[in-house]
Amino acid sequence: MFNDFKVTGGRPVYIQLKEYLKRMITNGHLLVHQKLPSTRELSFLLSISRNTVLTAYADLEQEGYIYAIKGKGNFVSQVETSKAPTIELNWSDKINDQTFLANELDLMKKGVNWNKETIFFTSIAPDENLFDVDNFKRAFINRMSIEGNAILNYGYAKGYKPLIDYLLHYMEIKGVDITNKAILITNGFTEGLDIVLSSLKKNNGRIICENPTHHSALKLFQLHGFEIHGIKMDDDGVHVKHLEQSLAEREYDFAYLIPSYHNPTGIVTSSEKRMELMDLFSKFNLPIIEDGFNEELRYSGSHLAPLISFAGLGNNVIYISSFSKILFPGLRVGWVLADKDLIYYLESVKRARTIHTSTLDQAVLYQYLQEGYFEKYLKKAKSVYKKKYEIAVQYCKLYIPFKRMTGDGGLHLFIELEETIDSRKLLEKCYQKGTVFSPGDVFYTDGSGKNTFRLGFSRLKEKEIIQGIKIIGDELKNMMEAKK
Amino acid sequence: MFNDFKVTGGRPVYIQLKEYLKRMITNGHLLVHQKLPSTRELSFLLSISRNTVLTAYADLEQEGYIYAIKGKGNFVSQVETSKAPTIELNWSDKINDQTFLANELDLMKKGVNWNKETIFFTSIAPDENLFDVDNFKRAFINRMSIEGNAILNYGYAKGYKPLIDYLLHYMEIKGVDITNKAILITNGFTEGLDIVLSSLKKNNGRIICENPTHHSALKLFQLHGFEIHGIKMDDDGVHVKHLEQSLAEREYDFAYLIPSYHNPTGIVTSSEKRMELMDLFSKFNLPIIEDGFNEELRYSGSHLAPLISFAGLGNNVIYISSFSKILFPGLRVGWVLADKDLIYYLESVKRARTIHTSTLDQAVLYQYLQEGYFEKYLKKAKSVYKKKYEIAVQYCKLYIPFKRMTGDGGLHLFIELEETIDSRKLLEKCYQKGTVFSPGDVFYTDGSGKNTFRLGFSRLKEKEIIQGIKIIGDELKNMMEAKK
Repeated sequence: MFNDFKVTGGRPVYIQLKEYLKRMITNGHLLVHQKLPSTRELSFLLSISRNTVLTAYADLEQEGYIYAIKGKGNFVSQVETSKAPTIELNWSDKINDQTFLANELDLMKKGVNWNKETIFFTSIAPDENLFDVDNFKRAFINRMSIEGNAILNYGYAKGYKPLIDYLLHYMEIKGVDITNKAILITNGFTEGLDIVLSSLKKNNGRIICENPTHHSALKLFQLHGFEIHGIKMDDDGVHVKHLEQSLAEREYDFAYLIPSYHNPTGIVTSSEKRMELMDLFSKFNLPIIEDGFNEELRYSGSHLAPLISFAGLGNNVIYISSFSKILFPGLRVGWVLADKDLIYYLESVKRARTIHTSTLDQAVLYQYLQEGYFEKYLKKAKSVYKKKYEIAVQYCKLYIPFKRMTGDGGLHLFIELEETIDSRKLLEKCYQKGTVFSPGDVFYTDGSGKNTFRLGFSRLKEKEIIQGIKIIGDELKNMMEAKK
Repeated sequence: MFNDFKVTGGRPVYIQLKEYLKRMITNGHLLVHQKLPSTRELSFLLSISRNTVLTAYADLEQEGYIYAIKGKGNFVSQVETSKAPTIELNWSDKINDQTFLANELDLMKKGVNWNKETIFFTSIAPDENLFDVDNFKRAFINRMSIEGNAILNYGYAKGYKPLIDYLLHYMEIKGVDITNKAILITNGFTEGLDIVLSSLKKNNGRIICENPTHHSALKLFQLHGFEIHGIKMDDDGVHVKHLEQSLAEREYDFAYLIPSYHNPTGIVTSSEKRMELMDLFSKFNLPIIEDGFNEELRYSGSHLAPLISFAGLGNNVIYISSFSKILFPGLRVGWVLADKDLIYYLESVKRARTIHTSTLDQAVLYQYLQEGYFEKYLKKAKSVYKKKYEIAVQYCKLYIPFKRMTGDGGLHLFIELEETIDSRKLLEKCYQKGTVFSPGDVFYTDGSGKNTFRLGFSRLKEKEIIQGIKIIGDELKNMMEAKK
């Protein structure tokens, strides 16, 4: 007995001893009223200091696991270890349909097995090697020294005030009229969208959006039981004529659009089209959910204002965004910018569900933004991603016989192949050769897009981008050859 | 022009200048193709360095706000500032009933006006002055130096692996058989409960729980449309006979219990009663949601195992907890410990809604726990709270003519008055005298409890506790006197 106690590095030894003894007691290996070795004995037996044993025993007594009798020693207390009759429920019988659907639509569960050598074009997360961890640490230390205790205690459901004010100002500079608008901070874009979808009345239960579109949004629309109507995309944004026709034919609860860097196509909606779209939505009196995805990652070209800035004093746009595709997605911070009245209600839904977003995340992010680290980082990130982007474009043109390629910057390209090519079959072949990408069908609202795929290059080295694209090109050519 | 530019402290000046100019451009105060002052002129005009102006102009050009003509200077680019026809939607028309209910049940929106002098017995948040911010900083720095880049990038929906393993071990030491169980990390207890409620099928739509019970849970049950059946509480836990009778009369989807420090009553369910309850639930084959609320805050007495430990290898208990009432609630970290199959499905719901919980929060919390800081902090916190608890008990007995007082430790007491006394009326009187508490009716499942209130003392100074209790007692005595 006691000889299976092993000290491991990194944790105080008295805690390890306590935990070891607690476990012996709760699993019944030490019996009630059994005498424990004296502190001297145990310290000798385990080759640890007597003080360590003393502290552990004192804590165990305080926590009610053992009791001491003066002059006699320490004994195991009465600790309930008996068990109720074992119940084996079949939980899959108790899961509702929505949850089965969430599981079915969960792409992460369908990921291929990880292999060190594999080239992953599946990710559009930022390259963590770019993070300026030192400035992040600085921001943390600075914020903590200002109000460390306060940010570790409960905050407000709406969010951390300095961050809200910063973001309002940030959006105002983008041209947004913030009169009568407010911000709700959420756990990233996704929670923002989920809260909005949970809060709005379903009048007809229909959503109109770009086709293809962001998979997480598509998943949430389905989980909320919406009928989704997708409009095909031109190279400068959604096809306006089709959109107008659809709006005229049927009513929709709202439109969902990703004008800035459309995911998955990488298309940037032009300034003229933004104006046209906003005119159209005004005409149909339609609320718009604008996904600010990667607005910050433009590599060149003129300033493009978000749709919500075209709304002026109007309140029909709900703008949802985060910095997660550029900056620290491990921090879960996003924001909903919308009409004050709407935010007032969303705040209660947020509070009911998650109380508030991590104040630590919000406060450190605020400090990082405020000190200007973000501006500096963004410049570096843009120059690195721009290079990767240019290489990806160059080699796709060189190696991949595509029908259409889109992606006006950002962290990914979208490829459309001849209609006879099934990109999942291509993926299988490429996987054998150590390269994977995201088959495009998961982004489509109507089950189409089987001949498309998305290439995310953000986390790959330039060498890997070239090598991976060559593999895809070669396998594609083989498939096309075989079809002849 | 330009003379309203004011430099404020804390932010790099070139960023302030950029933002100032962007705003001038997007709001139309600088017109398209208008020439900007030369860098020399502007630097003189604003009394800032020429380098600052150069950097700002270079950035603005890169971002497409201005363009340079060699030898001629810098000019304002074409930036879309036109607006679509203004749409004024009435958002309250578009909000669904659930959201109105969330707003209605949102106690935070009904809080009294804050006043520096007021003694607030409403909070049961930890006292932030107790936080050992230095060790928290240490934990942050240590974790960042180990894997700073990685924890700032995307993590997993299930949670941060080292924290999950730590918590599994932590629960095992409490006597839980973790074979076939798994953990999902959530944004605090509240998200854990919300995800569970969202995922389970409603067979009969009924929940059985203690009466009164935790307000946030009650709110979520209502928002999910459950019918709530509350069972009154004895001083050692829920009234078992009533519970058994109710279980025999009707079917329930599950039971919700807070055995460790019941909120709001502060009652600790005895070991014998835990066993009895688990036997009963086994007999009725009922799933249990166990709220681990404040399990760590026992001031004395024997070890009490959570209900899930009584289940042994059985899988009918879903245990949800967090450290938020003791440690750093500003970090939103909680966990659901349950059957592996169930967690597998909950993971997809978590991913669909919030991707994952802040990895920064999880990683720093893990390091803080792992290094033994939590053990140390808990000892300090317990001794401080114990003292406050004892003072509160002593002075309630001295000043308040209650019918029943419960609270076996923890951070609050619960008081039941003579049935003729309306605690909201008492609150009004006390508010005039600068003292507020939580009226008890909000915790009741059946609209009763009008003669009860909760006294949270965690954040108050000892002097304030005594003073506040005296005020409540005096006002109560006046009310009782007036009724004679």
